Amino acid sequence: MNGTEYHRKLGIGESAFDALTDHLEERSYDGLEYRHVPDYRQGVERGTALIAGEVVRGFPKIPRTLVLETGIPNQFDGEEEIAVEEKLNGYNVRFARIDGDVLAFSRSGMVCPFTTRIADRVVDLDPLFDAHPEATVCGEMIGPENPYTAHDYPGVDSIAFRAFDWRDRRTGEPLAVSARRERYEEFDVPQTQLFGTYDVADAAAAVDRIVRGLDAEDREGVVMKSPDCARQLKYTTSASNRGDLAYAFSLPFDYGREFVFRRLIREGFQTVERGESDHEVRERARDLGEAILLSMRESIETVDAGGTVGERHTVRASEESIDVLLEHLRGQGLRIEIEADRREDGERVVTFRKRTQATNDKIRNYLDGHIARE
Amino acid sequence: MNGTEYHRKLGIGESAFDALTDHLEERSYDGLEYRHVPDYRQGVERGTALIAGEVVRGFPKIPRTLVLETGIPNQFDGEEEIAVEEKLNGYNVRFARIDGDVLAFSRSGMVCPFTTRIADRVVDLDPLFDAHPEATVCGEMIGPENPYTAHDYPGVDSIAFRAFDWRDRRTGEPLAVSARRERYEEFDVPQTQLFGTYDVADAAAAVDRIVRGLDAEDREGVVMKSPDCARQLKYTTSASNRGDLAYAFSLPFDYGREFVFRRLIREGFQTVERGESDHEVRERARDLGEAILLSMRESIETVDAGGTVGERHTVRASEESIDVLLEHLRGQGLRIEIEADRREDGERVVTFRKRTQATNDKIRNYLDGHIARE
Repeated sequence: MNGTEYHRKLGIGESAFDALTDHLEERSYDGLEYRHVPDYRQGVERGTALIAGEVVRGFPKIPRTLVLETGIPNQFDGEEEIAVEEKLNGYNVRFARIDGDVLAFSRSGMVCPFTTRIADRVVDLDPLFDAHPEATVCGEMIGPENPYTAHDYPGVDSIAFRAFDWRDRRTGEPLAVSARRERYEEFDVPQTQLFGTYDVADAAAAVDRIVRGLDAEDREGVVMKSPDCARQLKYTTSASNRGDLAYAFSLPFDYGREFVFRRLIREGFQTVERGESDHEVRERARDLGEAILLSMRESIETVDAGGTVGERHTVRASEESIDVLLEHLRGQGLRIEIEADRREDGERVVTFRKRTQATNDKIRNYLDGHIARE
Repeated sequence: MNGTEYHRKLGIGESAFDALTDHLEERSYDGLEYRHVPDYRQGVERGTALIAGEVVRGFPKIPRTLVLETGIPNQFDGEEEIAVEEKLNGYNVRFARIDGDVLAFSRSGMVCPFTTRIADRVVDLDPLFDAHPEATVCGEMIGPENPYTAHDYPGVDSIAFRAFDWRDRRTGEPLAVSARRERYEEFDVPQTQLFGTYDVADAAAAVDRIVRGLDAEDREGVVMKSPDCARQLKYTTSASNRGDLAYAFSLPFDYGREFVFRRLIREGFQTVERGESDHEVRERARDLGEAILLSMRESIETVDAGGTVGERHTVRASEESIDVLLEHLRGQGLRIEIEADRREDGERVVTFRKRTQATNDKIRNYLDGHIARE
């Protein structure tokens, strides 16, 4: 399909489409050439893919508030109530049926060959796409055996899918919360949990209560949504901030300074909004300090002892699914080291490490007495 | 004086000088036009000033190690011993006599009108410059009544000077440590303390001991020097890191992310080099977390209560010295708010705040429910 037809499907002018094409990344999946929008830019959502004459719209960035009491009425001005659903800690995926095949698209719009191959192990989407071929099924892949973001959830031993949104593939228009939940129920698709629907005027107290419960269970947070799903807002737990900080400081020279800074700032606003006592704020400070320092110490000690550090993941799938995953990761320039590779109940279980060069090199250099001219 | 003459004094070629001139900042002090090198760049030290036909060489950046055991032998390779002196927490100043007047130059090479005016209150440099007119007297202005970096030191009620280096004004060549200390002694100029001279091979243990003592007194750290002063190396206490972090997080949106990150990294290497126990590292983590979170909480609460935050300083000097200081600060684009202004023993004592706009605005916005699209 040529640009003229894509620009109609995207609902933008020809010249806007021409301007966009310079920023499209070209890739192929199983012999099928496609393009996607890898970065945030005006007009077309990041992650939008142009494939086999079809448009798969990117998943929108969800804005965040640092203060519930004011952020909720601000973001949902004019609404009467909001639905509060759980935000899960995994990786974002969109499933769409293209030319008869269900493909899994990553946040940035790449076809993920691994997620595509394991899709039917985690959810059967054929009845849904038979009835609604124009749907994009949006959700999170969660669980410990996960090649991108591993996090434990009760009842998830390996990897699982939870839907949290349903959009029109081409326009990106979402279904309303209640319609979406009913449809996923109808098609037996597992969903993220809905905590309830609250009046905007007193949602802050309810959300605070929910978030404290999630925090105690080391879960990530919530996404609040207007009933029609047109507006969304996220808010996360302190446990999530600490988890992110521990992760970032285990690989300090590979993570952005901004990533670290934002999570620290969130802690400041949360403690003030909750009006925490001196004792409570000191407990929070201690946990925060430990998240930073203990993970950093472990990485420095690992390198000091001659080891290497990096993101470690375990995945379980067919022989072929794992081969394409490793090839896919290496194709993105990552250095993958296999640490364990075994068969279990007819599947292959591989533990690998994404080698993070900067952290290994810089820690080694500083340990060797490298002089910092900062 | 024209460029041709300056380039000879700087010891660089004419074309190198021409290239430099684009990067020189032009200023005037008391009707005297001068230029200085405000940024780090190749060839000529940051802070170098060209004034009244004279060159005042910038103070060199002192490299840092994160690990004493390896960093010291690395930096002082080929040396037998090093002198260890205290690094003070104040602001760097260079005094030089230009056309008969003793002027105080800031780190970036500006003439600081305040420091220039209060110079004879803190140290009488005339005998020294009579004997050595080509000297640059390098040191730190310390103490609580300080317009740039206030920190308490025992025995310093207001502001004081401590010399830590002596350089040739034009070439920047330093005096050897022992000669320098003797000369300052001879001319009655107060100096930073010398802890001693140590064999390079076992200096790390000695420096560690010294740094632990400084840490317990909430002091900044040490500068190690080869006997001829040609090579230097700095290392700082955890108390200094924490003080910096607390300061940065009291004004989080006005401080660089890199500033914060570096200080966190230093803590990681210090705990590993010291082989701290789990208990010790948890104490360090708690202190670190508190430095970050308590100061951030205080600033958010201040803004929440309708107040403003900013760097607060108190200075004590003559009427005129304070007027020129405030004018100088405002001339650099700072918004200065006077909080207290009184007379005491014939001097003027002013408490002012440098208003830090970004932090005030951003904290206010987030408290008001501003939505972060990050």
